Amino acid sequence: MPIAISAQFDFQLDQPTDIILQFEAAAIPEQAILSADTQLNCAEIARVPAHDGVGERVLFQAQGRIEVSYQALAEVNRLVPDLSNLAQLSPHDLPGETLDYLLDSRYCAADRFQSFVEDEFAGTAGGARIQAIEDWIARHFTYEPVSTSTTTALDSFVERRGICRDYAHVLITLARASTIPARYVSCFAPGVNPPDFHALAEVFLADDTTPGGGAWYIVDATRMADPSETVKIGIGRDAADVSFLTSFGSANFGDKTVTVTRQAG
Amino acid sequence: MPIAISAQFDFQLDQPTDIILQFEAAAIPEQAILSADTQLNCAEIARVPAHDGVGERVLFQAQGRIEVSYQALAEVNRLVPDLSNLAQLSPHDLPGETLDYLLDSRYCAADRFQSFVEDEFAGTAGGARIQAIEDWIARHFTYEPVSTSTTTALDSFVERRGICRDYAHVLITLARASTIPARYVSCFAPGVNPPDFHALAEVFLADDTTPGGGAWYIVDATRMADPSETVKIGIGRDAADVSFLTSFGSANFGDKTVTVTRQAG
Amino acid sequence: MPIAISAQFDFQLDQPTDIILQFEAAAIPEQAILSADTQLNCAEIARVPAHDGVGERVLFQAQGRIEVSYQALAEVNRLVPDLSNLAQLSPHDLPGETLDYLLDSRYCAADRFQSFVEDEFAGTAGGARIQAIEDWIARHFTYEPVSTSTTTALDSFVERRGICRDYAHVLITLARASTIPARYVSCFAPGVNPPDFHALAEVFLADDTTPGGGAWYIVDATRMADPSETVKIGIGRDAADVSFLTSFGSANFGDKTVTVTRQAG
Amino acid sequence: MPIAISAQFDFQLDQPTDIILQFEAAAIPEQAILSADTQLNCAEIARVPAHDGVGERVLFQAQGRIEVSYQALAEVNRLVPDLSNLAQLSPHDLPGETLDYLLDSRYCAADRFQSFVEDEFAGTAGGARIQAIEDWIARHFTYEPVSTSTTTALDSFVERRGICRDYAHVLITLARASTIPARYVSCFAPGVNPPDFHALAEVFLADDTTPGGGAWYIVDATRMADPSETVKIGIGRDAADVSFLTSFGSANFGDKTVTVTRQAG
Repeated sequence: MPIAISAQFDFQLDQPTDIILQFEAAAIPEQAILSADTQLNCAEIARVPAHDGVGERVLFQAQGRIEVSYQALAEVNRLVPDLSNLAQLSPHDLPGETLDYLLDSRYCAADRFQSFVEDEFAGTAGGARIQAIEDWIARHFTYEPVSTSTTTALDSFVERRGICRDYAHVLITLARASTIPARYVSCFAPGVNPPDFHALAEVFLADDTTPGGGAWYIVDATRMADPSETVKIGIGRDAADVSFLTSFGSANFGDKTVTVTRQAG
Repeated sequence: MPIAISAQFDFQLDQPTDIILQFEAAAIPEQAILSADTQLNCAEIARVPAHDGVGERVLFQAQGRIEVSYQALAEVNRLVPDLSNLAQLSPHDLPGETLDYLLDSRYCAADRFQSFVEDEFAGTAGGARIQAIEDWIARHFTYEPVSTSTTTALDSFVERRGICRDYAHVLITLARASTIPARYVSCFAPGVNPPDFHALAEVFLADDTTPGGGAWYIVDATRMADPSETVKIGIGRDAADVSFLTSFGSANFGDKTVTVTRQAG
Repeated sequence: MPIAISAQFDFQLDQPTDIILQFEAAAIPEQAILSADTQLNCAEIARVPAHDGVGERVLFQAQGRIEVSYQALAEVNRLVPDLSNLAQLSPHDLPGETLDYLLDSRYCAADRFQSFVEDEFAGTAGGARIQAIEDWIARHFTYEPVSTSTTTALDSFVERRGICRDYAHVLITLARASTIPARYVSCFAPGVNPPDFHALAEVFLADDTTPGGGAWYIVDATRMADPSETVKIGIGRDAADVSFLTSFGSANFGDKTVTVTRQAG
Repeated sequence: MPIAISAQFDFQLDQPTDIILQFEAAAIPEQAILSADTQLNCAEIARVPAHDGVGERVLFQAQGRIEVSYQALAEVNRLVPDLSNLAQLSPHDLPGETLDYLLDSRYCAADRFQSFVEDEFAGTAGGARIQAIEDWIARHFTYEPVSTSTTTALDSFVERRGICRDYAHVLITLARASTIPARYVSCFAPGVNPPDFHALAEVFLADDTTPGGGAWYIVDATRMADPSETVKIGIGRDAADVSFLTSFGSANFGDKTVTVTRQAG
C-alpha cells in the first residue's frame, strides 16, 4: 500500500548561514519513490549523497526566511521477519562496513553499558536480545518531549523518558553494548503521534535465508511505526548524522507540519 | 628518508573475547610501505578495510595471552604546504564525503564551541584559523597522562591538559566549530616522546593548486610529529574509530613498546 | 533608600506533592525588613531556617493550584568596599564555617579549573583575582536563557552564555579554583532586566578593618545589581540550595511577576 | 567491644600547598573515643569543626613530605534498629537542618532519578524503600576500583560498579530521589576488605520511640561494615565534603595503611 508523505517547515536566518537539510525519502532498493516534489525558496543548492550513501543532503548558504515543502508517494518492499530466531554475528564474521556501528558515537556511548546488558539481559543473544532490549525500553520509558540537542542515550537511560530520538539512542546503545551493530534511521511512518519526522533503530543480524549473510532490521522501541510501512530518509551512527536541519550558525525555527498516511489503492 | 617502525604489545583475555586491532601502517598513495611483517599468536583472523578505507582492521575471537609484533619500513611522500594561505570551503562546496567530519562525534561535540571560536579566533578563517587554534592549544595545554577512555574534548578543554589523543580531539572540535571538516589520525612518527602510538588531526582546506579542489592536511597541536615523516595507521571521526585495541569484553593490557626512527639512506 | 519588592507566582500540582519555597527577603543584620506580607493559599505550612540560617524555607504538601503573593519593603545597610585591595585568606586562616564554600558542589565543580585560573589570571590574588574573573566573564559571556536545571558551571564555561544563575555559578567555580570561598545568593535587586528573581555570588576575603578578620562580599558578573541595593533571599553552595521552588514530584509552573523598585524617600 | 584503629599515610608537596585533612574518629555522643594519638610532621596546624560539627578538619600549609600517623581506641554505642518498619517523614515534618540532605550535591544529583525509583521500588516507602535500594545495589553492583575524583552517582549507576564511595553515592542519590534525607559518612570499620578508610550512607527516618521524632540510620550497600561497630570520622552531603585529603594544588600521594580491629575485652 503506497504511503503519502507531506512535510512543510520554515526557519529564519538573520545572517548568511550554511545549512544542511536531509528530509526527503531515500531512493533505495527496499522502497520505491513513486513521485516526489521538493520546493525550497533558495536559488543555489548542492545535493550530495548522505551518510553511507542512503538519501541525499541538500546544502546551501542563505539569509532570510527559508521555506521548505515536500510531497511524495512511496511504496515499501521490505521483508520484516520475526527477529527472535535470528542469530548475531561475531565481529570477525561481520562485513567490514558494519563495524563502525559497533563503536561509540556522539549520543550512543555503548562501552559503559556492558555490565548492564550482561546483567539485565543475561541468557539472550541476537534477535532475542534485541527484543528483550526493545521490551525493556517500552516497559520502563515514558514518551515526553524533555530532550535537547545535547541529550545522550546515557541521559535518557537515567531519566527513562524522551521522544523517538531518545528511544532509538538507548536501543542502539544497548545493542552495541551487546556486540550487535546498530544504527539510527530517520524516517516517515504512518501512526506516529504526534505526526512528525520519526526516528528508530536498525540492527544487523544474521540473515537466515543466506548462509553467513546478514542484514539490517528495523526496531522501533516507541512501537509507533510498522517496519513494513516505514519510509527511510537516511541513516547514521546516531541523530548527529541525520538531523533534518543542521545549521552552522544561529537559525530560528518556525513552523513544521508533517503528515504521513496510507493511501488506499 | 625511510621511517623504520617497530611495535610490540600484549594483552590477556580471561574469557573468549572479540577483538578489533588497528596498528599497521596503511597502504595509501601518500606513503609507500617498503616492507612489513606482522606476528600475532592467533590462528584465525579476519582483515577488513578500516574507517573510510584507510588501513585495515584485524578481527578475531580469542582467549589467553595475545602477543602482537609488527615491523615495517615506510616512505612518506606527502606534500606539506604552509596552511596559513589556504582558504576554507563552504559546506555546499565541500565534497559530500567530507561532511560527516563537520558533525559531532563521540569525543568531539563541536556544536557547543561556536561562541568560543567566534570570540577567541575572530578575524581568522581557513588555514589561518587552524594555525590560531593550534597555537592556542600549544600555549595553554600541558602534556600529562590524565585522560581515560571517557575523556572528551570538552573535558580536556576545561582541564587544559592531556596526551596526543586529547590535543587532537580539542583541535578537531574547534575546527568543526569553525565549519572546517576535521578528522582523527592514528599514526607512527619519529620524535614522539615518550615513544608510543601517536595521534593528530587532519583538516580539509582548499587546495591552492586545483581550482575548487580541497585536500586533507595534517596538524599536530602537540608539535611532536613532522607531517612529512608521519606514517598513518588509520583515520576516524575521533579516537573511538581508530583505537589500536577495541575489546568486546574485559582485556588486561600488558606491555607495549613502540619505536619509530628515521633510517639513514 | 528603601527597596520595594513585589512577587507573584503560581503553579499547579496534579498530585499531593511536597514543596519547598524560599522567596522572601531574609531578616539579617545587613538588611532591615521594614514591612512584609506573604499570601499563600495553603492551609498548613511549616517554616524552618534556610541554608546556614539565612532566610526561611516554607514547606507544605498540597494539590491543585497554588498561588503565592509577596510584598515587602527593605532597607539595605551593607558596606560595599572596593575589592581590589582585599587579600584572600589561606585555608588554615579561614573561619571553619567558610571551608565548605571552597569545596565542589552540584553545579560548581571547581577542582577541574585550577589550570585555567592559574593560566588566565596569573599574577592576581584576593579581590584583584575576583575582579579579574568578574571582568573575564563580563567580556566573554552573552546573557541568553539557554540553561536548564541540569546546566553546570562547566557547561556555561564552554558555551559562554546563560542567565544570572549561570554567571554566578561560573564566578563561584573560578573563585573556589583560586582557593577563595564563594557562595550563591538568591536576591531581589532593582535594575534586573528582565525583572525576575536574581542571583549573584559572594566571596570571602580579608576584612581590612579587622586584623585577621574576613567577610563576605557580593559580586555580580552580570553587572545588573548594585550590591548596596541588593536584598538577599538566601544563600547556598549553589542554586541547588536556594531554589525559590523545589518540588518533590511534578509541578506545572504558571505565571511569575517580580518587580523591584527604589522607593523615593 | 572497643574498636582499635591505626592509620598511616604520606604525601609529597613540591610547592607550598594548602591542605585539609579529616581522618580522625569524631567525638560524638554515639561513640566514645577512649584514646587517640595523632602524629603529623607539620609545625603549625589549625583545627576547626568539620561539616555540620561532626569531627574536625586539620588545616595547614606545607611543602615537602608530609607523614601522618593516627592510633585510636573507640567504643560505639549506637542503636541499630531494623529499618524495615521505620516510616519516612514528609519534608514539612522534617527538622530544618535535614533539608539540605534532600537536595542535589556534587556527586549525588537525585533529581534525575525520580522516574527510576518510582518504577523500580514502587510500593515501598521509608525504611522498606531504603532496604529495597540497598538490596538492589548489592545485587547489581560489582566492587571494582574504577572510579576517579570526578565519578558521580550517575556514572556508577550506569556502569554498575565502583568502591565504597560509589556505593554510598548511589544509595544517597536514590534515597533523596525517594524524598528521604541522605548523607555521606566517612568512617573506620572492621571487616572492610581491602582494609582502608571506608564510606557509607546515613538516611533520616522516623524514630519509632519518639512521636514525631526522627534520627539518622547507617546503611552500607557494600555490606562490609556493621553499623554497631562503625566509627564515624565525619559526614557530608557527599564525598566532596569529607575527603580525608583535600589539596589546593598538586599533591603526590604515597603509601597508606589502615587497620581496624575488634579488641577483645
